[in-house]
Amino acid sequence: MKIQSYVAGQWCSGDGREDTLVNSVNDEFIGNVVSLTSGFDQFLNYGREVAGPQLRQLTIHERAEKIKLLAKYLLDRKEEFYRISYMTGATRADSWVDIEGGIVTMFSYSGIARRELNNDTFIVEGATEQLSKEGTFVGQHILTSKEGVSVHINAFNFPVWGMLEKITPSLIAGVPVIVKPGTVTCYLTEAVVKAIVESEILPEGSVQLICGSVGDLLDHLTEQDVVTFTGSAATGQKLKAHPNIIAKSIPFTMEADSLNCSILAPDVTPDDVEFDLYIKEVAREMTVKAGQKCTAIRRAIIPVTLTDAVSEALIKRLKGTVIGDPQKDGVRMGALVGKHQRDDVLAAVEQLKQGSEIILNGLENFQSVGVGNSKGAFMAPTLFHCQNPLNNSIPHTIEAFGPVSTLMAYDGIDQAITLAKMGRGSLTGSIFTKSQEHARELILNTASHHGRMLVIDQACAKESTGHGSPLASLVHGGPGRAGGGEELGGVRAIKHYMQRSAIQGSPTSLMAITNQYVRGAKTTSDRVHPFRKYFEELAIGESLTTHRRTVTEADIVNFGCLSGDHFYAHFDEIAAKDSFFEKRVAHGYFVISAAAGMFVDPGQGPVIANYGIDNLRFVEPVGIGDTIQVKLTVKRKIKKSKKPDDKYVTGVVVWDVEVINQNNEAVAIYDILTLVERQNEA
Amino acid sequence: MKIQSYVAGQWCSGDGREDTLVNSVNDEFIGNVVSLTSGFDQFLNYGREVAGPQLRQLTIHERAEKIKLLAKYLLDRKEEFYRISYMTGATRADSWVDIEGGIVTMFSYSGIARRELNNDTFIVEGATEQLSKEGTFVGQHILTSKEGVSVHINAFNFPVWGMLEKITPSLIAGVPVIVKPGTVTCYLTEAVVKAIVESEILPEGSVQLICGSVGDLLDHLTEQDVVTFTGSAATGQKLKAHPNIIAKSIPFTMEADSLNCSILAPDVTPDDVEFDLYIKEVAREMTVKAGQKCTAIRRAIIPVTLTDAVSEALIKRLKGTVIGDPQKDGVRMGALVGKHQRDDVLAAVEQLKQGSEIILNGLENFQSVGVGNSKGAFMAPTLFHCQNPLNNSIPHTIEAFGPVSTLMAYDGIDQAITLAKMGRGSLTGSIFTKSQEHARELILNTASHHGRMLVIDQACAKESTGHGSPLASLVHGGPGRAGGGEELGGVRAIKHYMQRSAIQGSPTSLMAITNQYVRGAKTTSDRVHPFRKYFEELAIGESLTTHRRTVTEADIVNFGCLSGDHFYAHFDEIAAKDSFFEKRVAHGYFVISAAAGMFVDPGQGPVIANYGIDNLRFVEPVGIGDTIQVKLTVKRKIKKSKKPDDKYVTGVVVWDVEVINQNNEAVAIYDILTLVERQNEA
Repeated sequence: MKIQSYVAGQWCSGDGREDTLVNSVNDEFIGNVVSLTSGFDQFLNYGREVAGPQLRQLTIHERAEKIKLLAKYLLDRKEEFYRISYMTGATRADSWVDIEGGIVTMFSYSGIARRELNNDTFIVEGATEQLSKEGTFVGQHILTSKEGVSVHINAFNFPVWGMLEKITPSLIAGVPVIVKPGTVTCYLTEAVVKAIVESEILPEGSVQLICGSVGDLLDHLTEQDVVTFTGSAATGQKLKAHPNIIAKSIPFTMEADSLNCSILAPDVTPDDVEFDLYIKEVAREMTVKAGQKCTAIRRAIIPVTLTDAVSEALIKRLKGTVIGDPQKDGVRMGALVGKHQRDDVLAAVEQLKQGSEIILNGLENFQSVGVGNSKGAFMAPTLFHCQNPLNNSIPHTIEAFGPVSTLMAYDGIDQAITLAKMGRGSLTGSIFTKSQEHARELILNTASHHGRMLVIDQACAKESTGHGSPLASLVHGGPGRAGGGEELGGVRAIKHYMQRSAIQGSPTSLMAITNQYVRGAKTTSDRVHPFRKYFEELAIGESLTTHRRTVTEADIVNFGCLSGDHFYAHFDEIAAKDSFFEKRVAHGYFVISAAAGMFVDPGQGPVIANYGIDNLRFVEPVGIGDTIQVKLTVKRKIKKSKKPDDKYVTGVVVWDVEVINQNNEAVAIYDILTLVERQNEA
Repeated sequence: MKIQSYVAGQWCSGDGREDTLVNSVNDEFIGNVVSLTSGFDQFLNYGREVAGPQLRQLTIHERAEKIKLLAKYLLDRKEEFYRISYMTGATRADSWVDIEGGIVTMFSYSGIARRELNNDTFIVEGATEQLSKEGTFVGQHILTSKEGVSVHINAFNFPVWGMLEKITPSLIAGVPVIVKPGTVTCYLTEAVVKAIVESEILPEGSVQLICGSVGDLLDHLTEQDVVTFTGSAATGQKLKAHPNIIAKSIPFTMEADSLNCSILAPDVTPDDVEFDLYIKEVAREMTVKAGQKCTAIRRAIIPVTLTDAVSEALIKRLKGTVIGDPQKDGVRMGALVGKHQRDDVLAAVEQLKQGSEIILNGLENFQSVGVGNSKGAFMAPTLFHCQNPLNNSIPHTIEAFGPVSTLMAYDGIDQAITLAKMGRGSLTGSIFTKSQEHARELILNTASHHGRMLVIDQACAKESTGHGSPLASLVHGGPGRAGGGEELGGVRAIKHYMQRSAIQGSPTSLMAITNQYVRGAKTTSDRVHPFRKYFEELAIGESLTTHRRTVTEADIVNFGCLSGDHFYAHFDEIAAKDSFFEKRVAHGYFVISAAAGMFVDPGQGPVIANYGIDNLRFVEPVGIGDTIQVKLTVKRKIKKSKKPDDKYVTGVVVWDVEVINQNNEAVAIYDILTLVERQNEA
């Protein structure tokens, strides 16, 4: 079998270096990868010119819909991928993280994009900034798709998730991708890309795959391209300093080494649930994917008084791990990805011996079930104990990328903080404690060195996704040794593939550009009440100015009696005089209720419901005798796709509401959110 | 005079390279800078160990208050700085941008931080993320101060603003700084740092200054440090690829070359106001700071039909620019910073001649007022016209950092877009147009190549801050050739000096860490109504569960009559049956009014006003006969500093409000914002 690349619309193989790929479990031949040696500039241009414009034409919601369709499609074909995944040494559980974890990330991002972002081709970010006294010059941030290609250089350990977690935000951002998987497991990535191509869901050229070497690809990148890298620090740093990447200021996101810690807080005793949770989690992180996880716990930081208790419990648990052919019943830990990788781990184990002693030796006394120790790249969990971790940088900096961890004891919480930070920047850290004070102290003093931190206790353990699991909605990456990158994290990751620009101009210009009403922009109106119009008929900036209403003492009295709200500022002449307002004032809730009374058109019509209010500020008090009036303006429209059991085809219309008084002063400003019927499903 | 550095708590000079600084206007000797040659690791440690912990102990609001105090202090001493600034060749107007522009940035940031960020030592960012079905495991992003120092390597052209715009967000982020100004104008930076030190407002060590070379400083940076660079691409790229910066993943923000464009849209004719605005702005950007501005307009992109009209008008205006000693009356443009700089500009002018013709020659026929042409580094505005800009990369890539621009014509808006993008990434682009369609098309198709863009028309011109002015609330920086960095932009810039971490755990743990109530966290209560408590007495998570109220038909009728809101879903049995709700339901406004009636304690007390509502969602409809109840919980507290004319000493208390029905389902959830009196001013 030949593992192929998918570039410029076709599957092909090159004429360069040949790599032989073998089954990690039994050394059987899988296939060859023959690297491409030329054409890299064309592949980049194919992405930029064929796929880029098509992706950018779709709205963010349309791109997100395609991602959801693709996720469903891949889920239907998942068993194909599981079968292949076994060859990488992964158990079914390991493969679940890789395959279904990757697909879940697609679903998550599709939802995040449709929930949190407008249905447009670009993102409008943050509030409108007032840049001038009279309000004729304002500012707004937008993000538009970069016009290049994003190149993802991935690690071998998650051939599916590693690809999907990166291509998803890029594609939703409107940027086509070129994926370069870790060679040793690229046959699994290839299988998934084959399915992606066969699905024909994405515009052609959106996803290209380069198996083997990327040749001189980086020399052809331009200012609108993006690179992400996951892998060893040595390679990552070389690429990050690549002259072309530096010269063109190409964004480079790196996720590299990380000596993640897990801290057992000083309040926990061996009788606590949290003690068992800790032992379980450290053991789990050492054995899942045979420890080949950048988020795995490498440093177990424990109270000095519990050194023996933790060692014993952990060794006992680790010894029970059944190792072997991941397709055999009862096997809990598979093989490392290959013998070369195992050699690297063993070399790191040798280094770790400086100043630490092996208290569980994974190279001796284990039996791999179903294959025999001579085949595959097996290795049992290996546990170190470092005697003097405050004065030994080795266990904080040498990463054995396999089932290897080091126990290190602290005396007092300050030492625990120091040890955590000796990793010089990590992806993940976790804290096991019953004490909120310890949680707070440990987190706030070590967060500067971590991309993600967990506090595990009895309350959350059952539902916790665990130390080692990056999630779509939370950032993944870490400072310093962890590479300084930031992936995932909800819309943050989508924005990484876009350019943020500040836009300045008149409110009317900014409304035209952003498709959102900006206070001060020219509004329009006709004689039809906007509540009588369907979603499609409403224009951004379309406005209704209502009749007026004079607020009377009777209104205040009636409103207090009906609501039950007899707050002194409304009802107590004596206290009110002495108050902030210096007089009795109308309830704020009355003002917005009366405003609705003025702008609502009561008859049956396309407006289905008012389901929310945002950013309401009572700017000026309304006193007895004040006369109020409302200006209601279409601010933003978000077309919703119809789900099978929806009664209506709808869209969200956000209205800007401004309630003014007789002096033309705003008394209340806010947004209301309504569901409005659409005329057409398309 | 010896220009000194301020490091490790003292003013000193070195024993290295000696630079002689002269007055840009008349070549008179100003002073010598003798570079430091050692101690750079100590200076870094001094910042990290002496100032860092002190800054991090202050809350963000306290840091912001100090910045405001310092800004006032510097403003009081501004005339000292103006006097020195003349020596750099700057006019009073140029100096205003540098000196008062810098101080205004401090005031702006102080306000932004206190308005938009919590009064705590760290930032809580975004919404709580639901990570589990039962809600026992949730996530939240926080940002904590990096524990290092930020090193700012600045350009010569804005010796004051260039420092202040960077140290302000860093100090508010809690990170001490080391400033290295451009050597040729470092005497002005030195004067401002002298004032900063003399003010004794900031913790000692917060600001250090290195005049002259930074020696081996970069070799001593660690993972928690940050570097920003403004200057030439050549130097910036070298520093960005510095082995230690790469090895430790040190964030490096670069602002380098930028061939900014300004586009005159095809709808504008010489009779339009926008035509005159365009001529004025291009001329202004060429002459302010003698064109030594990274945001200056270098490329004037004009309709081919207006080539003659624009050339003539622009040449006429530029010829009227009075050049000379900036202290002389009537002088509008001063000198370049030095003869060396002028040589660089002239070399770039030579390169620009390839494919472009000089239509206004700034090297000939001008008279510098008050000094004479032989002294100082004067040069008059120089204008090129490029014949074939689509096929000539020179005017898009060669930056003459002086009063030099190139006119280039386009035929059709697509060509204008192509030309704008040929800058391969710019800080700023502007568009002069009367047409909202042109504005939209030009902005959305070129924003990917720009950090900031303006649309100028008659409506905003009077209040516009202009093409070349970065503002505190908007991002400054640009992709590609502009360096790929991002400065300013409100809180975004503060976050640049902090580490973002995702925090996971139980709602109760997250509440303890973030000081904010998280739905699902354990709440507390006593028998005192929370409206009877002062700001200091209210604890995060303190909660009140009210009595219940059954919603009746009479409530709906009365509420409709009082508010005037007779929407069919409340009043029309026939339409309501057919509606989304399938029955008559209570007004949402009634539900939140009745909720207030239940949770408000009416008597005079510490709660002064409810001034706003955020994130209100009506989750379930409330029908006739439903019984509602409210849970009110202290979510967040923001201590406010008392201003001289405030009647009360107050704080903001944000309350989480949850209205539930008889089935324990949430019907409405929202935050209310109240002003609550404090017992003590401290």
